[in-house]
Amino acid sequence: MIYITRRERFNAAHRLYRPDYTDDQNFRLFGKCSYPNWHGHNYDLLVTIKGEVNPETGFLINLSNLSSIIKEKVIDKLDHRNINLDVDFMQGKFASTEMLAISIWEQLEFEVDKLGARLHCVKVQESENNYVEYFG
Amino acid sequence: MIYITRRERFNAAHRLYRPDYTDDQNFRLFGKCSYPNWHGHNYDLLVTIKGEVNPETGFLINLSNLSSIIKEKVIDKLDHRNINLDVDFMQGKFASTEMLAISIWEQLEFEVDKLGARLHCVKVQESENNYVEYFG
Amino acid sequence: MIYITRRERFNAAHRLYRPDYTDDQNFRLFGKCSYPNWHGHNYDLLVTIKGEVNPETGFLINLSNLSSIIKEKVIDKLDHRNINLDVDFMQGKFASTEMLAISIWEQLEFEVDKLGARLHCVKVQESENNYVEYFG
Amino acid sequence: MIYITRRERFNAAHRLYRPDYTDDQNFRLFGKCSYPNWHGHNYDLLVTIKGEVNPETGFLINLSNLSSIIKEKVIDKLDHRNINLDVDFMQGKFASTEMLAISIWEQLEFEVDKLGARLHCVKVQESENNYVEYFG
Amino acid sequence: MIYITRRERFNAAHRLYRPDYTDDQNFRLFGKCSYPNWHGHNYDLLVTIKGEVNPETGFLINLSNLSSIIKEKVIDKLDHRNINLDVDFMQGKFASTEMLAISIWEQLEFEVDKLGARLHCVKVQESENNYVEYFG
Amino acid sequence: MIYITRRERFNAAHRLYRPDYTDDQNFRLFGKCSYPNWHGHNYDLLVTIKGEVNPETGFLINLSNLSSIIKEKVIDKLDHRNINLDVDFMQGKFASTEMLAISIWEQLEFEVDKLGARLHCVKVQESENNYVEYFG
Repeated sequence: MIYITRRERFNAAHRLYRPDYTDDQNFRLFGKCSYPNWHGHNYDLLVTIKGEVNPETGFLINLSNLSSIIKEKVIDKLDHRNINLDVDFMQGKFASTEMLAISIWEQLEFEVDKLGARLHCVKVQESENNYVEYFG
Repeated sequence: MIYITRRERFNAAHRLYRPDYTDDQNFRLFGKCSYPNWHGHNYDLLVTIKGEVNPETGFLINLSNLSSIIKEKVIDKLDHRNINLDVDFMQGKFASTEMLAISIWEQLEFEVDKLGARLHCVKVQESENNYVEYFG
Repeated sequence: MIYITRRERFNAAHRLYRPDYTDDQNFRLFGKCSYPNWHGHNYDLLVTIKGEVNPETGFLINLSNLSSIIKEKVIDKLDHRNINLDVDFMQGKFASTEMLAISIWEQLEFEVDKLGARLHCVKVQESENNYVEYFG
Repeated sequence: MIYITRRERFNAAHRLYRPDYTDDQNFRLFGKCSYPNWHGHNYDLLVTIKGEVNPETGFLINLSNLSSIIKEKVIDKLDHRNINLDVDFMQGKFASTEMLAISIWEQLEFEVDKLGARLHCVKVQESENNYVEYFG
Repeated sequence: MIYITRRERFNAAHRLYRPDYTDDQNFRLFGKCSYPNWHGHNYDLLVTIKGEVNPETGFLINLSNLSSIIKEKVIDKLDHRNINLDVDFMQGKFASTEMLAISIWEQLEFEVDKLGARLHCVKVQESENNYVEYFG
Repeated sequence: MIYITRRERFNAAHRLYRPDYTDDQNFRLFGKCSYPNWHGHNYDLLVTIKGEVNPETGFLINLSNLSSIIKEKVIDKLDHRNINLDVDFMQGKFASTEMLAISIWEQLEFEVDKLGARLHCVKVQESENNYVEYFG
């Protein structure tokens, strides 16, 4: 079993808040992340897949295929977008790093299966000080 | 003459656009950076000052004083904010990295003078692939 | 189950040595790390916790609470200090990265429980070439 | 149980291709990585070992011993070399990052045993966007 | 006057040697960099241009135009290639980082003029420990 | 004229203080950096030299010669040492980053001349947030 990780990046705006709360209530719960006019991040997305090395090629899968799928299913929907307002797979969810990692996993799990590997981990790094990992 | 640089960081949302343009016109001019619902970045701000080493202390100035001024005049106004909507010193300007660097210089120039040093460079790094430097 | 990691930093001095050894004996065992007048590092501390996403907030726990606990229990005791001489929870122990990671785990384990999550990993990075991980 | 990781680096040339394929066939399978005149990378190698802390020393093993073994068995054979042509332990194998990680594991497994620890992971980072991990 | 820098990357193989020298002579002059079967690097290329901010757009020039020119004139010729054998603008030159920086400057100088800015610096980073800067 | 930079690293302990001050006075002037039992850093040292490319070799000077000189004159004296107590060229000086950069310049200036290049800049990075540059 071998594990291979591909990094992709996206820049996006978001806000943490509950729509049923006032701005004051949201600030007490989410701090500066709740400011109403949005803020944003350079997100690093690290997708780890696992499987057996293909003896015909020496690789697990062609990484450019993995990169294409991540771009189509995740990056093109998030990059230069507002996570709360613009992203179909985040509708009705908190725009937290945790929910982002889980939702990106759901976008990718079956696509990675089709490539002949298995999704192992989705890691979303929001800043140099914080990241989230989800293993399904 | 010695040069010392302090890095501070802020996360903010922004959008590049001309208010007198349609979304289509803005997209042709600014690309994805013009998307109407904002996007954002983890910005790195590097402030370089210069002067003579103080023989009483061995340092140019106390860096914690520089850090306090950068926080008060720049970071507190930008961090977790929308550069186009929320920041007093960016009102009526393009929210480009170039204009941000120039405007941060204007915020800091006289404050650094008061500390007994001179502002040398404001560098704003928007992503791992792009940064702007302004020397006054 | 979701995993979230918070990075904090501290700068500290230390020395690897056995008090029952001569300087020569210590040098043969610990090399340059045993030099008697101390040396130091910029340490990166990465604390990973795990648990379920809270459906009321979209996050595992409020990361600023985690950060506060790490600062109080670990960083404030280590930062700008001598690990061998100044740190209560390192008394009578080797000031190795291994012992540091284990001792930081002990400082944090029950505090993380109180926040409603579980401590998963303490990672201490001493330099760009060396790091230690402890999982309890 | 404690885990400690040592990073070493090497610069090498390689090419992905099947000798029974034409250049065209190789390009369709391996893309730019198949170009016939080689390309290269700054590889980061991260070797993680595990075991119990030695109560006589406070460390798992002396990291300089681990570093020496990695240099002798791996780095000296790969650094400034052509992975396809020059490296004894890669003869007859694809010069992929996957095969490199597996082969480096084979070079190190018993050597780490002799040091009194166990090999846990070999991670080979080919670029800022791709890395492979092998756990035996 | 504002300075803006764009980073691009390429992976390439090369070798330092004089064709009129034996392998032994080349090794004495160039060390491991002269090994006959090539080695390689992940190169970082940082291109800095300067000029006035355009009052119609808030930027110096459209960075995607700069990126396109760097890709066409430099990256497409170097990426996954052998600098000594494959690159038209390096023919008959040493494949050193110094010559690479000077030659990339020559590739870009007039192209940047056409964009309405001036080339200020070409920086080529060969490894985390070495980089070259050329200012024309 | 071409500029080439070599990075070297050292780990050292230090303390900022005036010997004629009490601990309280030192704390008011230097903050946590004055704590009496030392703290430390992983220092990055970047040495930039300049000159003409040698037409016989394609490089400015052989970088391994520069690296040897930096190691002999600077790194071997600082690495794993106490800057205040152990380093001959820092005796009687403040152990600030500013004084360190100036003193390293003095150690290297004539040595670089002998290699056939000129020293351009000594940059000392004390942490990810602070660095000092000295140009003579």
